[in-house]
Amino acid sequence: MNIEHGSRILFTGDSITDAGRKRPVGEDAKDWLGKGYVCRIASILEAWQPGHGCRIQNTGIAGNTVRELQERWQEDVLDLKPDWLSLMIGINDCARGFGRPQIEEDRVSPELYRDSLERLLATIRPSLKGLVLLTPFYIDSSFQDPLRLELNLYAKHLKDLATRYDAVLVDTQAAFDRVLKQLHSSRLSQDRVHPNECGHLLLARAWLDAVGFEWHG
Amino acid sequence: MNIEHGSRILFTGDSITDAGRKRPVGEDAKDWLGKGYVCRIASILEAWQPGHGCRIQNTGIAGNTVRELQERWQEDVLDLKPDWLSLMIGINDCARGFGRPQIEEDRVSPELYRDSLERLLATIRPSLKGLVLLTPFYIDSSFQDPLRLELNLYAKHLKDLATRYDAVLVDTQAAFDRVLKQLHSSRLSQDRVHPNECGHLLLARAWLDAVGFEWHG
Amino acid sequence: MNIEHGSRILFTGDSITDAGRKRPVGEDAKDWLGKGYVCRIASILEAWQPGHGCRIQNTGIAGNTVRELQERWQEDVLDLKPDWLSLMIGINDCARGFGRPQIEEDRVSPELYRDSLERLLATIRPSLKGLVLLTPFYIDSSFQDPLRLELNLYAKHLKDLATRYDAVLVDTQAAFDRVLKQLHSSRLSQDRVHPNECGHLLLARAWLDAVGFEWHG
Amino acid sequence: MNIEHGSRILFTGDSITDAGRKRPVGEDAKDWLGKGYVCRIASILEAWQPGHGCRIQNTGIAGNTVRELQERWQEDVLDLKPDWLSLMIGINDCARGFGRPQIEEDRVSPELYRDSLERLLATIRPSLKGLVLLTPFYIDSSFQDPLRLELNLYAKHLKDLATRYDAVLVDTQAAFDRVLKQLHSSRLSQDRVHPNECGHLLLARAWLDAVGFEWHG
Amino acid sequence: MNIEHGSRILFTGDSITDAGRKRPVGEDAKDWLGKGYVCRIASILEAWQPGHGCRIQNTGIAGNTVRELQERWQEDVLDLKPDWLSLMIGINDCARGFGRPQIEEDRVSPELYRDSLERLLATIRPSLKGLVLLTPFYIDSSFQDPLRLELNLYAKHLKDLATRYDAVLVDTQAAFDRVLKQLHSSRLSQDRVHPNECGHLLLARAWLDAVGFEWHG
Amino acid sequence: MNIEHGSRILFTGDSITDAGRKRPVGEDAKDWLGKGYVCRIASILEAWQPGHGCRIQNTGIAGNTVRELQERWQEDVLDLKPDWLSLMIGINDCARGFGRPQIEEDRVSPELYRDSLERLLATIRPSLKGLVLLTPFYIDSSFQDPLRLELNLYAKHLKDLATRYDAVLVDTQAAFDRVLKQLHSSRLSQDRVHPNECGHLLLARAWLDAVGFEWHG
Amino acid sequence: MNIEHGSRILFTGDSITDAGRKRPVGEDAKDWLGKGYVCRIASILEAWQPGHGCRIQNTGIAGNTVRELQERWQEDVLDLKPDWLSLMIGINDCARGFGRPQIEEDRVSPELYRDSLERLLATIRPSLKGLVLLTPFYIDSSFQDPLRLELNLYAKHLKDLATRYDAVLVDTQAAFDRVLKQLHSSRLSQDRVHPNECGHLLLARAWLDAVGFEWHG
Amino acid sequence: MNIEHGSRILFTGDSITDAGRKRPVGEDAKDWLGKGYVCRIASILEAWQPGHGCRIQNTGIAGNTVRELQERWQEDVLDLKPDWLSLMIGINDCARGFGRPQIEEDRVSPELYRDSLERLLATIRPSLKGLVLLTPFYIDSSFQDPLRLELNLYAKHLKDLATRYDAVLVDTQAAFDRVLKQLHSSRLSQDRVHPNECGHLLLARAWLDAVGFEWHG
Repeated sequence: MNIEHGSRILFTGDSITDAGRKRPVGEDAKDWLGKGYVCRIASILEAWQPGHGCRIQNTGIAGNTVRELQERWQEDVLDLKPDWLSLMIGINDCARGFGRPQIEEDRVSPELYRDSLERLLATIRPSLKGLVLLTPFYIDSSFQDPLRLELNLYAKHLKDLATRYDAVLVDTQAAFDRVLKQLHSSRLSQDRVHPNECGHLLLARAWLDAVGFEWHG
Repeated sequence: MNIEHGSRILFTGDSITDAGRKRPVGEDAKDWLGKGYVCRIASILEAWQPGHGCRIQNTGIAGNTVRELQERWQEDVLDLKPDWLSLMIGINDCARGFGRPQIEEDRVSPELYRDSLERLLATIRPSLKGLVLLTPFYIDSSFQDPLRLELNLYAKHLKDLATRYDAVLVDTQAAFDRVLKQLHSSRLSQDRVHPNECGHLLLARAWLDAVGFEWHG
Repeated sequence: MNIEHGSRILFTGDSITDAGRKRPVGEDAKDWLGKGYVCRIASILEAWQPGHGCRIQNTGIAGNTVRELQERWQEDVLDLKPDWLSLMIGINDCARGFGRPQIEEDRVSPELYRDSLERLLATIRPSLKGLVLLTPFYIDSSFQDPLRLELNLYAKHLKDLATRYDAVLVDTQAAFDRVLKQLHSSRLSQDRVHPNECGHLLLARAWLDAVGFEWHG
Repeated sequence: MNIEHGSRILFTGDSITDAGRKRPVGEDAKDWLGKGYVCRIASILEAWQPGHGCRIQNTGIAGNTVRELQERWQEDVLDLKPDWLSLMIGINDCARGFGRPQIEEDRVSPELYRDSLERLLATIRPSLKGLVLLTPFYIDSSFQDPLRLELNLYAKHLKDLATRYDAVLVDTQAAFDRVLKQLHSSRLSQDRVHPNECGHLLLARAWLDAVGFEWHG
Repeated sequence: MNIEHGSRILFTGDSITDAGRKRPVGEDAKDWLGKGYVCRIASILEAWQPGHGCRIQNTGIAGNTVRELQERWQEDVLDLKPDWLSLMIGINDCARGFGRPQIEEDRVSPELYRDSLERLLATIRPSLKGLVLLTPFYIDSSFQDPLRLELNLYAKHLKDLATRYDAVLVDTQAAFDRVLKQLHSSRLSQDRVHPNECGHLLLARAWLDAVGFEWHG
Repeated sequence: MNIEHGSRILFTGDSITDAGRKRPVGEDAKDWLGKGYVCRIASILEAWQPGHGCRIQNTGIAGNTVRELQERWQEDVLDLKPDWLSLMIGINDCARGFGRPQIEEDRVSPELYRDSLERLLATIRPSLKGLVLLTPFYIDSSFQDPLRLELNLYAKHLKDLATRYDAVLVDTQAAFDRVLKQLHSSRLSQDRVHPNECGHLLLARAWLDAVGFEWHG
Repeated sequence: MNIEHGSRILFTGDSITDAGRKRPVGEDAKDWLGKGYVCRIASILEAWQPGHGCRIQNTGIAGNTVRELQERWQEDVLDLKPDWLSLMIGINDCARGFGRPQIEEDRVSPELYRDSLERLLATIRPSLKGLVLLTPFYIDSSFQDPLRLELNLYAKHLKDLATRYDAVLVDTQAAFDRVLKQLHSSRLSQDRVHPNECGHLLLARAWLDAVGFEWHG
Repeated sequence: MNIEHGSRILFTGDSITDAGRKRPVGEDAKDWLGKGYVCRIASILEAWQPGHGCRIQNTGIAGNTVRELQERWQEDVLDLKPDWLSLMIGINDCARGFGRPQIEEDRVSPELYRDSLERLLATIRPSLKGLVLLTPFYIDSSFQDPLRLELNLYAKHLKDLATRYDAVLVDTQAAFDRVLKQLHSSRLSQDRVHPNECGHLLLARAWLDAVGFEWHG
């Protein structure tokens, strides 16, 4: 694995990262990390490489867009002084425009998403040993769903930022798309946004592959 | 309205009809009819035409395919001696093939669906004053979703049966498609199968329009 | 409908408007608007005219008389800057005198009701595109019930204010009286104050008719 | 009191008698007798005349009409061999015709009520030392409410039977009407059928007065 | 009744008065007055004399000794400006010495009880139309129980104060003793301190008799 | 201890023995033995003499008199083939006559108690290695309480049977009386029937002392 | 993977296999398979090889020894006609002797375990395409713990049977021991019997490795 | 017993002392002292020596290390002015290093434990009549478990402090080890840290023996 022994790894983001984690910081005990991909990653690391020595923390909060993340960036990211930061954000920024179209102030436009995210990354990248960025995703096999089309704009911006900020990129949408060729979307998520257990394992696998984890170690 | 004053109207089907109705037969009090389109129809009838004199009953059961409906047809339909029967079935018959593909015995093929349904209708049509058939639906704007494509086969069979058995047809898929041009599917249903309140009102409207209800009566 | 596309519509009042809405402001999701006539109106608008573009909010609070409404008028009405305001208040003002006769300070007399209401309307009418006033009601077929007789005084004042402030008037008592000719009051409400689902639909219908909604649109 | 020391007194009827009593027979402990007038009578007897030596039992069942009472008469009345029987039934027989007008089989007509009741009384009167009959009531000050008007027919039959079967008659409607001259009905009952605590005490008082209880004993 | 029409009557004391009343002040609705003798008194007054016009309030708090009562005297008694005050306190003052003998600071000695109570009464008696004092009681037929013997000292002080402050005295211990000649104490209370429903009715009767209530009014 | 290593010891009786044990037979795990003296005895045996090798079972049932015990004697005692039987019964037999005096069939007279108990003991004594009989008790310092006086008759019969059937006698009343000289009864039991934790430990101590347990082993 | 596409795989055993699965047969939905290693295996298979086509079922029951498994073998194993059977049993057989030493009939001796298991395997092996046997385990780093020493005997018998019945063997104890070199046992299980999430993932990994699963497929 | 009549005895420590006690100070009623050894000691004292006159308090808090104890020392120990202090702390200080190895700041090293504890004892010893120190323990029969080996270091420091501060020492580990020769650890604790009821009685016995309690008093 490309992450150094004994690193402090912080995951943050929205409900998919949160997944019911403990407040104020999810850490250590498996269920304190939530029931999502973060806890799967921590468990797999421990079961496969019990001597990894890394410290894993989770400060995702359900319902967050980049706007809310910004407000708690100091407390929930900078103050924790991570060596590695793993960030997934964007589905709420985009989906609010479809789910609550009249409440315009709830939505974050792709441009605002890009600019806000860039400002956040700029504050922390220099002090990090590594950065992992996960694209937002929509678990729908149809390439024409309007929400999915719009979400591509956000993902595009995130990919650009990954290049500019030397991040490990996890293309979660591609990971889901591969499986969606064989399984209907209802098998991975009830609402196309929140993965079930299989979907979270799939995210964990994509993340671990991206950071060079050795499954047959 | 084309339904005669004082008629006994029976609704049956799957979870969308059930919607939490009382056992063994949902009737009379609004929440005993469930929280779905059946209860909306009953409430609208009472609020618009308090003297309609009809008796409305509900024997939908969540999770039913036509196979399970067949097993309880005598008790839950014939024995209640309805004047009008309203039936919506088919989403489970079809969706099991996508949600639980390995459990083949759970699925009902389009052909089996057609034949089973026909047998049921044949037993009751002669004794009915009227029959209403609602197509199954999938609340997704994408015409290419594989489940939706497959569901079209079931809907096609149902439409044929509506013609042959002189039924009032309610094309629920068309009703949803009209709205999906302006609203994203997530606004009508979380899982594309179970409508939210707006979706159930939309079903109630389609049903009432189909039986000639006068909104400005 | 006489309400302009994209308007911001605010409903406020007492328990009948509240109906379990979300705090601090009920909005958007159907159950966040409560289980009463407000949520029916929002659902019908969305199902019949998905492109209406209006934003619907609810700040009703159970137990309110015009006295409590006055105390929160700035925060719960003015600050939300509605285009249209829909207001129903008065049943508690009147009924406290019957239900808790010894606690005189709980009651609001018809005159105090009129004056307080007028002061409130004066602060907001100029900034509104439209105002809807609903009379309070008592779901009892007897014209001699002392509470109902007294309530007429409040309704009379409200009707006068509707004229003077150029409001759309919804005569809810008349709407209930029409139905009470054919149904016993116990079929619309358990306690003659809080409507059941059918009663709320009846209110929604009266409201929508009053603002020129087209059912066969 | 006209009831003999050490008598076995059985109360039966519908929800007003039931009031949450223990199954299969409510007896002895106060809450096992329910929260209604039966428990008040038992408590008052014990507090005023601790040596009364009577054994009080309750077999009321919520929702009963005389039809259901008939089905359990052997088990819930005759088998218990009471010395005194106190019976209140009839509100459901009548109110079903208003609350569920379409479900005609649920209602019991005044004539059927009279005949069924008579048959029941005939089976037990000879073996009783005393019989108490309570009229059904509707807690509404309006003499014109259609349900109340209809209920008068049932009460009339009951009064006739009281005369013919030498029963102590408790005119509960008259007891409520006296109070309704000064209190609004909402102060005695939320739904005009089920009394609140004050209403149950009022019933207890009427019952005790009717059997010659001495308050200043 | 010796209490004037339209009086404001305040009950206060410990758990027997509290009985689960609403906070901050129990009033009006029966269960807001608790489940004890206060609510029985209010219900009987309303059922027997619906036009009494009195306003009944309850500020008893479970676990209080005169020491805690003193701390809230201003807020829970004086500020409510009662016309009549009804007070029962003392069982906790005494019983703590038996139930928690090591925690000496919890107990209130008979002398401290007397002096504290006197100070409280002095502050309010001049502004009252009437004062009712209830002795504390212990529901035990044995005159030798050490707790009961000790409690007599407190009751003695209270009786003296009743004389000096021109109060209506309710000798609750005497009321219970009359009944205990015929019933075992376990029939009136599980723990000899908290009366069951029959015991509370007995208290209500003693209170009403003491203020000259007419049962056959 | 006089009980042989590896014995099967069965406790049975009423609620004091039951104390919430598991059904159908309480055994092994501490809370499966209930929260009363049986579980204390088992825990003390295990903590003091971990190698005792005895198997402890509990079939007490709350509310039992000797009449109910008789009905389940075969299944709950004989079939379990104990080496030692420990039995405490009688408080319900006696107390029913005070708590429910009108329900005469609930009470068991001292004579019936004696005869029934004797019949039961006769069926099992020959097959036992040892028998322990505990007197019923009433936790009241007054020797004049009528229930306690009556209970003495039952205890007297039990003591006679202990002599005739060569049983180890545990005089529980004496054990409580010793403590009641220094503590008020409310410190050992809320209702004078069911001991609190201290009271159950006191029972356990008396039982263990009676069978020759060595505390300083 | 050595398991054929489209195979029917049945897992059975005790609480570690059960893990809260649905009754009567856990299948399909992830939480219907329980929260243990079975559900992890199913999720990993689906996330890594969505086209595997296998049908996974779980009939483990908490608390089972081979004795109880035997009683339900026909219904819970043979009748389901699996292609592959995966079986883990033995910890209860062994641990009962330590946790409930007095209840000898609860324990299954190593010899009885071996013989019973053999009889079961003989009935099904011929009809299986493959058999997976998992040793029981105890998550304790001490090789001297008496329970662990005794459990070795059971594991030894199971390994012999694996050879004789041509089974894929999963040495779960070895898998845990590898990790216990670096983590304290409390990090994998609270009670050394039931693994936490990390422990279940470790079991899943060992199982998948044993059947030739390709992690980098 | 070496503790003076009427002493104020304060127990403090971590979860084993806490055991669910009442906040802010557990006292008097048995369950207010928690469900652990403190409550057993109080109950035994009361049952054996009802006139002991001691006042027992409990301020243990689950999860505490000596670090957290230090922060609340003033409020939870000094301010309560005990005559005797009984302290058990250390298992969390040690076990955090095994259960959460990455979170280094959670652990308290043996040296820091010793120094912190010494500082605390120095502040209070002069004002105490007596001090009881209990060693931390690990309920595991293996002397080689790494956590147990490490815990020995903490226990060693505590024993030294006991000598230097003239404390009564309770060697809890020795008490458990004696029993572990005959019972498996799973019979005394599920997780080897928190004793079950038998384990808590064993602690109570060790404590009482250490302070010279006479079981056959």
